Amino acid sequence: MRAVIAREAGDESVLAIGSAPDPCPGPGEALIRVRGTSVNRADILQRRGLYPPPPGASDILGLEAVGEVVTSPPGAAIAPGDRVMCLVSGGAYAELLAAPASNCIPIPAGMSFEEAAAIPEVFITAFQGLMRLGGLQPGDTALIHAVASGVGTAAAQICAAAGARCIGTSRSPGRAAAAAPWGAEPLPVTTGEFAPSVLSMTNGHGADVILDLVGARYLEDNIACLARHGRIVLTGLVGGRRGEADLGTLLARQGTITGSTLRGSTVPEKAEIMRDFADWALPLFAASTLRPVVHAVLPLAEVAEAHRIVEADEAIGCVVLVP
Amino acid sequence: MRAVIAREAGDESVLAIGSAPDPCPGPGEALIRVRGTSVNRADILQRRGLYPPPPGASDILGLEAVGEVVTSPPGAAIAPGDRVMCLVSGGAYAELLAAPASNCIPIPAGMSFEEAAAIPEVFITAFQGLMRLGGLQPGDTALIHAVASGVGTAAAQICAAAGARCIGTSRSPGRAAAAAPWGAEPLPVTTGEFAPSVLSMTNGHGADVILDLVGARYLEDNIACLARHGRIVLTGLVGGRRGEADLGTLLARQGTITGSTLRGSTVPEKAEIMRDFADWALPLFAASTLRPVVHAVLPLAEVAEAHRIVEADEAIGCVVLVP
Repeated sequence: MRAVIAREAGDESVLAIGSAPDPCPGPGEALIRVRGTSVNRADILQRRGLYPPPPGASDILGLEAVGEVVTSPPGAAIAPGDRVMCLVSGGAYAELLAAPASNCIPIPAGMSFEEAAAIPEVFITAFQGLMRLGGLQPGDTALIHAVASGVGTAAAQICAAAGARCIGTSRSPGRAAAAAPWGAEPLPVTTGEFAPSVLSMTNGHGADVILDLVGARYLEDNIACLARHGRIVLTGLVGGRRGEADLGTLLARQGTITGSTLRGSTVPEKAEIMRDFADWALPLFAASTLRPVVHAVLPLAEVAEAHRIVEADEAIGCVVLVP
Repeated sequence: MRAVIAREAGDESVLAIGSAPDPCPGPGEALIRVRGTSVNRADILQRRGLYPPPPGASDILGLEAVGEVVTSPPGAAIAPGDRVMCLVSGGAYAELLAAPASNCIPIPAGMSFEEAAAIPEVFITAFQGLMRLGGLQPGDTALIHAVASGVGTAAAQICAAAGARCIGTSRSPGRAAAAAPWGAEPLPVTTGEFAPSVLSMTNGHGADVILDLVGARYLEDNIACLARHGRIVLTGLVGGRRGEADLGTLLARQGTITGSTLRGSTVPEKAEIMRDFADWALPLFAASTLRPVVHAVLPLAEVAEAHRIVEADEAIGCVVLVP
């Protein structure tokens, strides 16, 4: 099959189309004909050699796919011909993909593959962070960092659907404003400081849930603007992994910091998350309450350009690749 | 009434018996004739002027009491003459105490006031941290810091009752060993480093739940020996409030850090915690599966000596004061 091959660790120029053996589904795995995938920050870290695939995973990039089931294992809830979206530990930048059948859920009826490809990783990351780990409640205020990103635009919509207020940050005022159509109140973070603004926008209450992919650089301010019993969910570390924290404030607010990584979850864990997500989100996609945010659709051969766009923070939403 | 009066902020010598107006129960409050209270680290911080009482609380020290109900508010689950234990925001170093009736639970049948006085703050802190926030499960490994303290000896017993393994640290080898009768495997922390030992004692698994009152000084090692999906519950900061954390490890382990403070909880929050605690723990006290750990019982007039013992880390378990 055709697949993206990285000839070494490096910038996006190391990526090119090549050929790879067709994947061989193992026990419990379906074979998927890939019709779309999206570029995630984890792919970029992996390409740079900073985030090696977990043991047993494909060394082809790509953590999610949409497509048609070619073969399915005995007893699976999916059957050949089904249109599905799935999470995998690697291998999705390719024409064919072996995916755990339990980690495949239906594509919302009537939705194109290109749109659906902008759902799994970003919406499920946001759902897991905000709803399952963050316990977002109606009336809560959520603070979403990098709100114009794929995860950010998904998170803003999930807040709106859950009846929560969403304050969305970006280092660029234009990108912060770009997330407004998805329900986020824009908060540009040009100086690196945002806690005073969040406290002021919430009359001192602070954020009940913070979805953060920045990490160390934002840790102080995240704690400083956390509401009583607030929950910080860390999904990434683009701003560094070692951070200093004021545990006194965390203690006084009875706050929580939780790390969340889909790629680090086991197949059964992902299956549980995806079942929850499907139950909650599929009706909302059907009603257009949730909508995939596609910045661009590129053929798989233009994978280098797709990585460049995501790495340069040019995308509003997801950059989709189609084999 | 007689009560402990602190004439100023300072060391234990500022404490002496004096007289204070009888407390006036507000709406929903019971009047309690105090038969015992215990010395908590929060009392010591408050005495030093480092932990002012919350707005509206008595400025008399003391966060817990056991005693008899003198008057109870309409509709309360307790009645005059009942033997109760309670959590309050202050005022327990005295002969009489106004306490929210919802924050009073029965003393286990047949238990003396002196023993019961070693229950509320330490057992409920450990229960809230391990069971409610930490989600301790049978088969889990818990790491309990300062295991010879009041909270530590309570936590070790709660682990045993919950079917969990308990590793208990102390800076003193003798104190670590002293907690063995309550089910803790001793781990002296003489160098300040404990993560390698915890990982070795658990064959690399790490601790599923960590109950920590040290804070900043232990943060790095707590994260380093945290199991996958592990939970660190912070209940104190005797080792400092500003700490550096490796968020990368927290993220990879999908770990959680939660701040917990009973004193910072509202009356309804405490009522919910105490109901849960009573349901779970009272049958276990009745069966002697859980036992209060009383280091010494002193008359209220010897409050200065009681503070000295706790502050010098001389107590195994609780130092009880009796008016």
